[in-house]
Amino acid sequence: MQAVVIHAPHDLRLEDRPLPVPGPGEVLVRVRAGGICGSDLHYYHNAGFGTVRIREPMVLGHEAAGEIAALGEGVTGLALGQRVAINPSRPVGDDEYIREGMRQHAMDMRFNGSAMRIPHEQGFFREAVAVPAAQAVPVPDGTPFEVAACAEPLAVALHAVRQAGSLTGKRVLVTGAGAIGCLVILAARHAGAAEIIATDIADPALVTAAKVGADVTLNTAADAGALDRFKADKGRVHVAFECSGAGAVLASLLDVVRPRGTIVAVGLGRDVTLPIAPIVTKELVIRGTFRFDAEFAWAADLLGSGRIDVTPLLSAQIPAARAVEAFELATDRARAVKVHLTF
Amino acid sequence: MQAVVIHAPHDLRLEDRPLPVPGPGEVLVRVRAGGICGSDLHYYHNAGFGTVRIREPMVLGHEAAGEIAALGEGVTGLALGQRVAINPSRPVGDDEYIREGMRQHAMDMRFNGSAMRIPHEQGFFREAVAVPAAQAVPVPDGTPFEVAACAEPLAVALHAVRQAGSLTGKRVLVTGAGAIGCLVILAARHAGAAEIIATDIADPALVTAAKVGADVTLNTAADAGALDRFKADKGRVHVAFECSGAGAVLASLLDVVRPRGTIVAVGLGRDVTLPIAPIVTKELVIRGTFRFDAEFAWAADLLGSGRIDVTPLLSAQIPAARAVEAFELATDRARAVKVHLTF
Amino acid sequence: MQAVVIHAPHDLRLEDRPLPVPGPGEVLVRVRAGGICGSDLHYYHNAGFGTVRIREPMVLGHEAAGEIAALGEGVTGLALGQRVAINPSRPVGDDEYIREGMRQHAMDMRFNGSAMRIPHEQGFFREAVAVPAAQAVPVPDGTPFEVAACAEPLAVALHAVRQAGSLTGKRVLVTGAGAIGCLVILAARHAGAAEIIATDIADPALVTAAKVGADVTLNTAADAGALDRFKADKGRVHVAFECSGAGAVLASLLDVVRPRGTIVAVGLGRDVTLPIAPIVTKELVIRGTFRFDAEFAWAADLLGSGRIDVTPLLSAQIPAARAVEAFELATDRARAVKVHLTF
Amino acid sequence: MQAVVIHAPHDLRLEDRPLPVPGPGEVLVRVRAGGICGSDLHYYHNAGFGTVRIREPMVLGHEAAGEIAALGEGVTGLALGQRVAINPSRPVGDDEYIREGMRQHAMDMRFNGSAMRIPHEQGFFREAVAVPAAQAVPVPDGTPFEVAACAEPLAVALHAVRQAGSLTGKRVLVTGAGAIGCLVILAARHAGAAEIIATDIADPALVTAAKVGADVTLNTAADAGALDRFKADKGRVHVAFECSGAGAVLASLLDVVRPRGTIVAVGLGRDVTLPIAPIVTKELVIRGTFRFDAEFAWAADLLGSGRIDVTPLLSAQIPAARAVEAFELATDRARAVKVHLTF
Repeated sequence: MQAVVIHAPHDLRLEDRPLPVPGPGEVLVRVRAGGICGSDLHYYHNAGFGTVRIREPMVLGHEAAGEIAALGEGVTGLALGQRVAINPSRPVGDDEYIREGMRQHAMDMRFNGSAMRIPHEQGFFREAVAVPAAQAVPVPDGTPFEVAACAEPLAVALHAVRQAGSLTGKRVLVTGAGAIGCLVILAARHAGAAEIIATDIADPALVTAAKVGADVTLNTAADAGALDRFKADKGRVHVAFECSGAGAVLASLLDVVRPRGTIVAVGLGRDVTLPIAPIVTKELVIRGTFRFDAEFAWAADLLGSGRIDVTPLLSAQIPAARAVEAFELATDRARAVKVHLTF
Repeated sequence: MQAVVIHAPHDLRLEDRPLPVPGPGEVLVRVRAGGICGSDLHYYHNAGFGTVRIREPMVLGHEAAGEIAALGEGVTGLALGQRVAINPSRPVGDDEYIREGMRQHAMDMRFNGSAMRIPHEQGFFREAVAVPAAQAVPVPDGTPFEVAACAEPLAVALHAVRQAGSLTGKRVLVTGAGAIGCLVILAARHAGAAEIIATDIADPALVTAAKVGADVTLNTAADAGALDRFKADKGRVHVAFECSGAGAVLASLLDVVRPRGTIVAVGLGRDVTLPIAPIVTKELVIRGTFRFDAEFAWAADLLGSGRIDVTPLLSAQIPAARAVEAFELATDRARAVKVHLTF
Repeated sequence: MQAVVIHAPHDLRLEDRPLPVPGPGEVLVRVRAGGICGSDLHYYHNAGFGTVRIREPMVLGHEAAGEIAALGEGVTGLALGQRVAINPSRPVGDDEYIREGMRQHAMDMRFNGSAMRIPHEQGFFREAVAVPAAQAVPVPDGTPFEVAACAEPLAVALHAVRQAGSLTGKRVLVTGAGAIGCLVILAARHAGAAEIIATDIADPALVTAAKVGADVTLNTAADAGALDRFKADKGRVHVAFECSGAGAVLASLLDVVRPRGTIVAVGLGRDVTLPIAPIVTKELVIRGTFRFDAEFAWAADLLGSGRIDVTPLLSAQIPAARAVEAFELATDRARAVKVHLTF
Repeated sequence: MQAVVIHAPHDLRLEDRPLPVPGPGEVLVRVRAGGICGSDLHYYHNAGFGTVRIREPMVLGHEAAGEIAALGEGVTGLALGQRVAINPSRPVGDDEYIREGMRQHAMDMRFNGSAMRIPHEQGFFREAVAVPAAQAVPVPDGTPFEVAACAEPLAVALHAVRQAGSLTGKRVLVTGAGAIGCLVILAARHAGAAEIIATDIADPALVTAAKVGADVTLNTAADAGALDRFKADKGRVHVAFECSGAGAVLASLLDVVRPRGTIVAVGLGRDVTLPIAPIVTKELVIRGTFRFDAEFAWAADLLGSGRIDVTPLLSAQIPAARAVEAFELATDRARAVKVHLTF
């Protein structure tokens, strides 16, 4: 079985691995498409991000879809050939976070294709993977694999949108119109946002943002004052989703978000320097959002039913044998939003 | 009528002003006690803070209590001699914030003794002041004036505590045990916090914190690792109230607050540099709190009924003629928490 | 000026009234369309409902749109000929509910075309009406008047939907698919509901429900067990909106709403008899929703922009001279959803 | 080992049962005190309540405390002789409710001394019981067993109070001042309620209510209009806790709770007939509360630390050999609030 394995920066190899055998309660999924995420690119270019580093060879990938190829003992409700999106998130044990329903904060989290835990939980960029049956989430037969593989990043976006409470009737700003930013736009539109403004420093990203539903797109590199009009009356934006990961962008939001408005920090960046005064005097709320939990099944449903249409984000599907080419393409924001490997 | 007027840094003068005449719907309050707040000290030492600067001579003071000395036309429900706490907050007009019940964010806010607006709204450190009747909030006859004058800062603390939702059963951390920090401790205790930890860099402040209900007091200057034990399991603190205004203190909270926990920014400081990663991955919430609205009447009630006892915070009552002495004393954290001028 | 006036049950008269002159801050609106609401029908058939009774002749109507025909002194921001939806809700004074942002609960509420207050606040079924400028909410030129006139009932639906918190990803049940029920379906769809089930006892209503976005429609008169499948696992519905006003329907929801789910009581009916046990053991939430506040402007915006399309609800536009015919048509659920008078 | 077993109405027997042996992960608790709850009395007098009926002999009791008498394999963190409160709630499996943190709604709930499930989960009124170690919650050595045994009903009260959001500064009404009502009063006081009004139809209950912190006590049997003064201005009560279980009492609350206020249904009664109009027009919230989850450990902590003092509720401790006498005493509200069996 072929697998796409990262060893070191720019040392991405196609390797042969033994075909997994599904244990009791598990299914074997024949992977068909795997989306390349920003964190995959960090592993590829830098062997990690922040304190998270590749300590051993790791199969990359956590956005994948495929077909059920074998059923482990005791599995019911899934059939051979069933098309599924694969949920990479598996909290283990019964700690306080799990008991309180904050499952993605479990002390013992197994997340495929992530180097946060040692040993690393191997990822989905391979021909087949065995997972607990509950992690194989059915989608309708006609759903393209690269669409179904978007369940994971869409779940991230849906979870992000939920952090802001109800968006119906709200003016929403999304900073950073990459794949996650565009999925947040889709999710915010779906949640009834009244007006969506998207900003980026690259025009191609903004073109995509408009395609997925942004009412207004602004290039803040071309016009540093692009958001000035939203500073009136203490701020005109109800909810901002910071998806660029850039500290300076997060800081710039304090002037455009209205009193008691919310800034959801989605993008994982480095440091941010913020003036305390507007946070205090405007009673602003800054809150992080991380991964997802129940939103995965919901995302699969939205994609399968077509209620959310991610096709404007799908840039290319490239056979895994050309993984390096795919990773280079995914790195180029001018040419690509979301690139999928096919298996 | 004597008034305590700031002209420039350390230029604090006792001046004669004409006795106000209450207009229709107003009352004249004979001021008896006025608490010196951190912002009063900023005006005294630096003529302001941040972008807020003294542009014209201003009577200081916004924490005051006294007795009704005259009733303007049409005032009912208040009697001569009635003891009152004076609410300095007066939002004017009918803008969207007022309509939504976010009154302290009104575009046109008149707040006594504040230089935020020009012309400045004159303050309460004077023998008498005329205010709309609704701003004179009755307290029982026996309530000491310096206690009733604490309604304003206690309202700030009650509002801060409200920002965190229910505190019952929560582990609460208060950083910065000055007057506001100690009032937050009192308010958090009152709201059913399970355990309250207070930190400061000065031992006298921590002694006061213990007196008003902190279960644990930690000097973070003496022991940089004082909070380390709260870093276990991703963070053991449910809600932190940052009352020091120091950016580094706020930043230090990211490790001790548990996933989805809240940091309420109470203290007005300068810049803070924060790593984005823990905000995102722990889904932390940072939210500002500013002044108060309905909490003023509630604070007056709690003080008048004795349900909250602020006497451990009352350091000295000094005649207004010795205002400079009082301001110097209030500046010295080793000797004073809350100093009141008397009139 | 012609006006449609109710005097007693089935005593609806077209009467001549003097043309109003807009006072300072007011505008004169030339009314063009006025929707007949369930409460108008109650006044027409029964002279009121519950304890609310016609005590004096009253111009009916509170769902109206028209054009600005004259500007009172000091009005800015509105021009002659501007197309507007007219907000019938005017809370007066400055009581605690208004200060807390609960404006529709104001002690002194002036609501046009309602007999709740004495003297009655006259309604909008007349050729022209003078209202405070803030109550004339602009819509784009091309918006049909009968569409703009739906701003009021749509605001009711948007407010109802807001009571349930975020609906994104939720399974929603709407009982009673009349005009308000169908507007709730539109609002819930807009807010991202995952699946919407509508029930009614009349098939024509369900046909309309399907047109505006219900995924599943069920006739509970034809099949008493229609909702049985949603009783599995303690209940499969996240949020139910009870729009029929029938107590028995509300009671039937306790079995289909899941633990900690919400029942929003929208329809104004008589008594309901509920078993306490499921409310307690499933921790159900039953909450009322009444009218609207800020949602009026939002509704006008959604209608003007076409984001919400109410045309499937528009049954007929009938000149005011034939008001009785229009009221009789509006009473017949088999033939009409929303009937508008034109002026 | 002696156990108190219910067979049929008024057929309560002291029977000999084999001493349990703790399995892996379990502990054996030597029970010392067990509180008689309202549901125990229902089993005693009526063999159940509603649809819940005794189908086989059942050891009663779910409010108990004792000492660790033996440790099963693998148990750490508990020592022989450790004093503990015993949590009767054990959700089993991994269903959606458990995953969402709504553990008391688990499809498979094992609750000691309850006939809801068949076979019944046997209760705690016996000399010793084996439970999973996590259900044995330590309390300090000096804690009286009858106090520690109140952890269960106090957890119910804490959970009820949590349903209403923050109570700080709120006017709270508690209807029905039995053991649960009085514990709700204690919990509401602890959570910072501004004013607590208690009603009952029996004076002895109101005397206890006053002892545990009610500011106002009203006998609604003696004065049907006792609550009339709270009907002013659409209702003066922010949050009402209905603990009597009487439908008529719940209905009477609609007039005294203010707009958007909350009625928490705590007491398990039969039917309630409510007018829909005030629920809708005042946007009232009625919500049920059921048992508890994380609140058990919190309750044990509050009792062990003395922050909440339940001693005014403790009427008698009676040896299990005189169980019938104890049950009869517990039935008499004039003589008893909470009666404990001792073992």
